[in-house]
Amino acid sequence: MTDIGDLPVAGNGLLNRRLFLQAGAAGAATIMTAQASAQDQPDSMRIPGAGMSESGAPSRYESELYRRAIASQPGTTGAGVSRTPLEHLDGIITPSRLHFERHHSGIPDIDPGRHRLIIHGLVKRPLSFSMDALARYPSVSRIQFLECSGNSGALLSAEPVQSGCGELHGLVSASEWGGVPLSALLAETGVTANARWIVASGADAAKMSRSVPLDKIMDDAIVALYQNGEPLRPANGYPMRLFLPGWEGNMSVKWLHTIKVVDQPAMTKDETSKYSDLQDDGDLQLFTFPMAVKSVITSPSPGLNLGSTGIYQVSGIAWSGAGRIRRVEVSADGGESWADAALDELVLPHCLTRFRSAWAWNGGPAVILSRATDEAGNVQPTRAAVLEGRAVGTFYHYNGIQAWQVNRDGSVNNVYV
Amino acid sequence: MTDIGDLPVAGNGLLNRRLFLQAGAAGAATIMTAQASAQDQPDSMRIPGAGMSESGAPSRYESELYRRAIASQPGTTGAGVSRTPLEHLDGIITPSRLHFERHHSGIPDIDPGRHRLIIHGLVKRPLSFSMDALARYPSVSRIQFLECSGNSGALLSAEPVQSGCGELHGLVSASEWGGVPLSALLAETGVTANARWIVASGADAAKMSRSVPLDKIMDDAIVALYQNGEPLRPANGYPMRLFLPGWEGNMSVKWLHTIKVVDQPAMTKDETSKYSDLQDDGDLQLFTFPMAVKSVITSPSPGLNLGSTGIYQVSGIAWSGAGRIRRVEVSADGGESWADAALDELVLPHCLTRFRSAWAWNGGPAVILSRATDEAGNVQPTRAAVLEGRAVGTFYHYNGIQAWQVNRDGSVNNVYV
Repeated sequence: MTDIGDLPVAGNGLLNRRLFLQAGAAGAATIMTAQASAQDQPDSMRIPGAGMSESGAPSRYESELYRRAIASQPGTTGAGVSRTPLEHLDGIITPSRLHFERHHSGIPDIDPGRHRLIIHGLVKRPLSFSMDALARYPSVSRIQFLECSGNSGALLSAEPVQSGCGELHGLVSASEWGGVPLSALLAETGVTANARWIVASGADAAKMSRSVPLDKIMDDAIVALYQNGEPLRPANGYPMRLFLPGWEGNMSVKWLHTIKVVDQPAMTKDETSKYSDLQDDGDLQLFTFPMAVKSVITSPSPGLNLGSTGIYQVSGIAWSGAGRIRRVEVSADGGESWADAALDELVLPHCLTRFRSAWAWNGGPAVILSRATDEAGNVQPTRAAVLEGRAVGTFYHYNGIQAWQVNRDGSVNNVYV
Repeated sequence: MTDIGDLPVAGNGLLNRRLFLQAGAAGAATIMTAQASAQDQPDSMRIPGAGMSESGAPSRYESELYRRAIASQPGTTGAGVSRTPLEHLDGIITPSRLHFERHHSGIPDIDPGRHRLIIHGLVKRPLSFSMDALARYPSVSRIQFLECSGNSGALLSAEPVQSGCGELHGLVSASEWGGVPLSALLAETGVTANARWIVASGADAAKMSRSVPLDKIMDDAIVALYQNGEPLRPANGYPMRLFLPGWEGNMSVKWLHTIKVVDQPAMTKDETSKYSDLQDDGDLQLFTFPMAVKSVITSPSPGLNLGSTGIYQVSGIAWSGAGRIRRVEVSADGGESWADAALDELVLPHCLTRFRSAWAWNGGPAVILSRATDEAGNVQPTRAAVLEGRAVGTFYHYNGIQAWQVNRDGSVNNVYV
């Protein structure tokens, strides 16, 4: 316990959640006289500002608002990633221009007037859908996360990689996804009695192909045409992508071109050699579809240094492929004690949930953690628990608790606890 | 009744809502052979695509995704508007670059390191808040609409103005707004017993100033720092703006600089000469704060022509300053009969709600309308009802039902019914 915390509820300064929701954080503001406030007149109040534009842009003072750790795999034609700068964002929506990317052969340039979605295989009548045809079908829109199953893979290194939150965990983003339920299109084609899976393939040069159980397709899969209100961006599948709420991102096939209805999974290269997890005993775990419960503190985090001692907002995101987040706990003493964080109003299924705690930093070293629990009762595991039984070098589906070390000088870095 | 509609529930082809949610729209797709689907191989599957980038952009094929009806008032220094292209969007989120703008003296260029929020007047201790200070306070985020009270003013013209949906109604947008509840900051300053209102002023050259009842401030007002996950854009108040859920946009003062706590409204230029409604009898209606219940069909709408006859999705947005949307009805026969539209999953208070109906167009002329009802029981009025008692030339706070005429050639235009 610190001597700064008012109503501490967990070790090393974590404050009461009720206090955090209701009251201010004394001491952060500067006391001033009424005279000073009346005299203050910034330049912007003397000089008319800039004019209107067709398309807005961020402030020139926000130099950090770019995707991170953009990496092309050597020797490939456009296989690589770019990551969302989680530490500079708040709330749950990811601006589309900052949504993470994972391509296997670059971003194709597709003319929507010529693109078609073809549904064939174990169907009663194969159909081809143009964009105009799809626009006539019933649509839905929902706000949901998308996470690459390779997200946070750097946490499997033997020594903690010293990078920012977005560089380590930025292969997760959330958007409003809008489009046509695939069930409505399969109602048009019909399926035969032995139909059990579909194989979705993209119109990229990697011909990304994944097998998906028909149950999931009929439940909540959509052919997404819109992201955050506007047509998909090319990097996210323009003009259409499959979207499978809560499931590993790779399965939400971009530039969706064909759906073949089949009776068993196709065992494509993208679901056997990749996106599968080799175990210590030689077994290969295939078809890990829903993303596991997970959370990360985005602030404080590496690169966002603390200043003077006193009360800080600890803020982060939590998500689960099993549905809603039920609870997020935060620790400021390396996991010895935990306090419930406050959740922002919107707690949606298969979506990022924003959590916040008040923390009185006493200026000493501290290790801060977050631990999420979803509505199915799954609790985010420790790093050690995730590693147990895994073969060395296997990096998909990592959801361990992230520890940030806060140092005396206010800097923050990645540690294993 | 048409001969096309399957289970029609209202005149001129409006279909059963249940049907729309569960089944496809027969006839829109092209039947094809399995051979054809296997042979199809677009260029994008042969040539590797483009590489990763720090910041994404829309497709080059989406040439319409820009703000509309950008208008500077002659003789002013940057007073004007730009509008959201509603007819090209879907869902409820407005991409930040397409959020409407209304400036009174252009967009100021503000250095967040130097900007301060000053709270003074009837307070126990005046305080000055830097950005760093605000970041320490408890935050919230919510998805809510913002509407300029001058939105849809063109509908008061004697003859229907022939423009697109965004040009007529695009001074409304919705975003995730994140920031610090003003109640937490006022808990820091304290207020004196006679405090009843605040006057919020911006750091722009127009010194936009509005009076707001203290009750609203304590209820749900925030100092917004984030929009759709990232720091505010300059055109929307960077680095901070007041945000008043459901109230006329002008009151959510951008580039927020001072909050003076007072005992009565200040009667500023921006709440007397402007944003007030002159009546036929000479009375001036001041302080119309919550925006009234409203809806508009975004598709079909002018510029989005229909093609062949058959089933179309009728889609639009509804919103109310009184809270949630409870119901949206659609008519395809100029208001003689109405059918309930389906609402997308997220029906949030003070937010855009997306509605959809299935409509079997028989190729004949049709007048399509939407009518929203909010959770307080307010029903969107007809144009005639809105005009009743208003002085000529008064254009704020228009929320009448919008009628679109669908013509035999598939074109759509604005009509009065």
